[in-house]
Amino acid sequence: MTSLDASANASSSATSSASPPSVSLVGAGPGDPELLTVKAMKRLQQAEVVLTDDLVDARVLACLPPTARVLRVGKRGGCVSTEQRFIHELMIREARAGARVVRLKGGDPFVFGRGGEEVDALREAGIEVEVINGLSAGLAAPASVGVPVTDRRCTPGVAFVTGHNGEHGIAPDWAALAKSRLTLVVYMGLARAAAIAQALQDGGLSPGTPAVIVSAAHTPRQRECFTTLAELPAAIEREGLPSPALLVIGEVVALSPRWREDAGLTGAGAGSDADAGRVGEPLATFRAA
Amino acid sequence: MTSLDASANASSSATSSASPPSVSLVGAGPGDPELLTVKAMKRLQQAEVVLTDDLVDARVLACLPPTARVLRVGKRGGCVSTEQRFIHELMIREARAGARVVRLKGGDPFVFGRGGEEVDALREAGIEVEVINGLSAGLAAPASVGVPVTDRRCTPGVAFVTGHNGEHGIAPDWAALAKSRLTLVVYMGLARAAAIAQALQDGGLSPGTPAVIVSAAHTPRQRECFTTLAELPAAIEREGLPSPALLVIGEVVALSPRWREDAGLTGAGAGSDADAGRVGEPLATFRAA
Repeated sequence: MTSLDASANASSSATSSASPPSVSLVGAGPGDPELLTVKAMKRLQQAEVVLTDDLVDARVLACLPPTARVLRVGKRGGCVSTEQRFIHELMIREARAGARVVRLKGGDPFVFGRGGEEVDALREAGIEVEVINGLSAGLAAPASVGVPVTDRRCTPGVAFVTGHNGEHGIAPDWAALAKSRLTLVVYMGLARAAAIAQALQDGGLSPGTPAVIVSAAHTPRQRECFTTLAELPAAIEREGLPSPALLVIGEVVALSPRWREDAGLTGAGAGSDADAGRVGEPLATFRAA
Repeated sequence: MTSLDASANASSSATSSASPPSVSLVGAGPGDPELLTVKAMKRLQQAEVVLTDDLVDARVLACLPPTARVLRVGKRGGCVSTEQRFIHELMIREARAGARVVRLKGGDPFVFGRGGEEVDALREAGIEVEVINGLSAGLAAPASVGVPVTDRRCTPGVAFVTGHNGEHGIAPDWAALAKSRLTLVVYMGLARAAAIAQALQDGGLSPGTPAVIVSAAHTPRQRECFTTLAELPAAIEREGLPSPALLVIGEVVALSPRWREDAGLTGAGAGSDADAGRVGEPLATFRAA
């Protein structure tokens, strides 16, 4: 049986009253509901109980049936491990009660979202789990400003890496990443941007390496600022770009139609809502979806 | 104007007879048409001319209107640069003729697909370009076998890297990647798997590092084989897994419900169609979408 068939069976059995308890772990993508997958949209429209993260866009939640019970289980700092256990218990309780449960996570469930931990907790409780990928902001945010992250003219690939310093996991080896030649897409990196930029330069990455900060990609609040590795911390402070934001660092950033006009070297960063997506002639032939 | 608004304008103008020539660069995702985004599905259903890569699944092409002209422009080796230029010329000609042109690429247009080069060629010709992300196999293939690529218990992130040796671009620095602690997802790595596995071990990665080969993810032909870094080349030879395939290397692979039963250490790899997606008790509570 292929994974496709298995998934089709899971789908049909989920609507049967005799089906075993199950949860769909669904990626909500970067924001715009049109960027949900067709399969994710179907699960949302069938959902009876939805446990959602804070980062899920309101327009995605608007795709749920009015009868769906929406439980907001986003973390707002504080006692993280207890909260995560609470989410597990809630999912298990609702699934055992027979509800069609959707666990909705921003972006992709398996990219920086504890999706693996949630799968483990559900499986240990004997609950079936279906994982439906979503578009990760790590690809969708750079694309929204015209940055092709793996372009062979600049790089052998791309890394998605956490900006955390190891407090809640394993710290990145910034020196190795600096040597890797990969485009770096840093999640949750705003607060530690100065330390990260310094560590990458200490590891040998040129201070002039092109960089762009993309805040709230694919939402009406999207803002961005083109700059360089050395200027990254100052640009964040100057532009006041809010979380969630990604840092994209690498030569590929200069391939964007936006680079020439926006590069922060001049101190004139982009980033206002007014010019996002369209800033004069060079961008007239590029539109992000 | 936000990028969302810009994209909505592009959409409405594309249906107007007075609209400037434009092309939609659309990610076809990993195979299953239900894993297209809602927006990609819309563009497919409106398409008049479609230039498609070889790797796009037949079930995705079946979503096109019967009236759409489908031009297969996949590369089958040989004179690569000429062929790429031919693709550019064909897109430009069709767009200038006023057709609603979709350039359909497997996975995500900006992940190892020359999407950046195609955007540049179109922009230079004055053609508007819209990029619609797709699910990259780099996330969808590991998820299909229960591997959470960025799990904080094992890694600070994930790298998508080409298996090519620099012939058509920049060669990866395998020693730096070995030190990076990232999960490695190697695209187009089957032919050079022995050299890659050796370079990663020379760079300090343990020979026992868990690994999985996933072939044709999210298609009816999906096959996979769990193994270790040292055993990777032998597993590829033994199982005869065909392209396209990804190599996923890192401690996160052992988090899969499949790892315990399938690990190639015993020489008994998984990989037949019969057991993919469902192999006995430990997997009964995990189903990939």
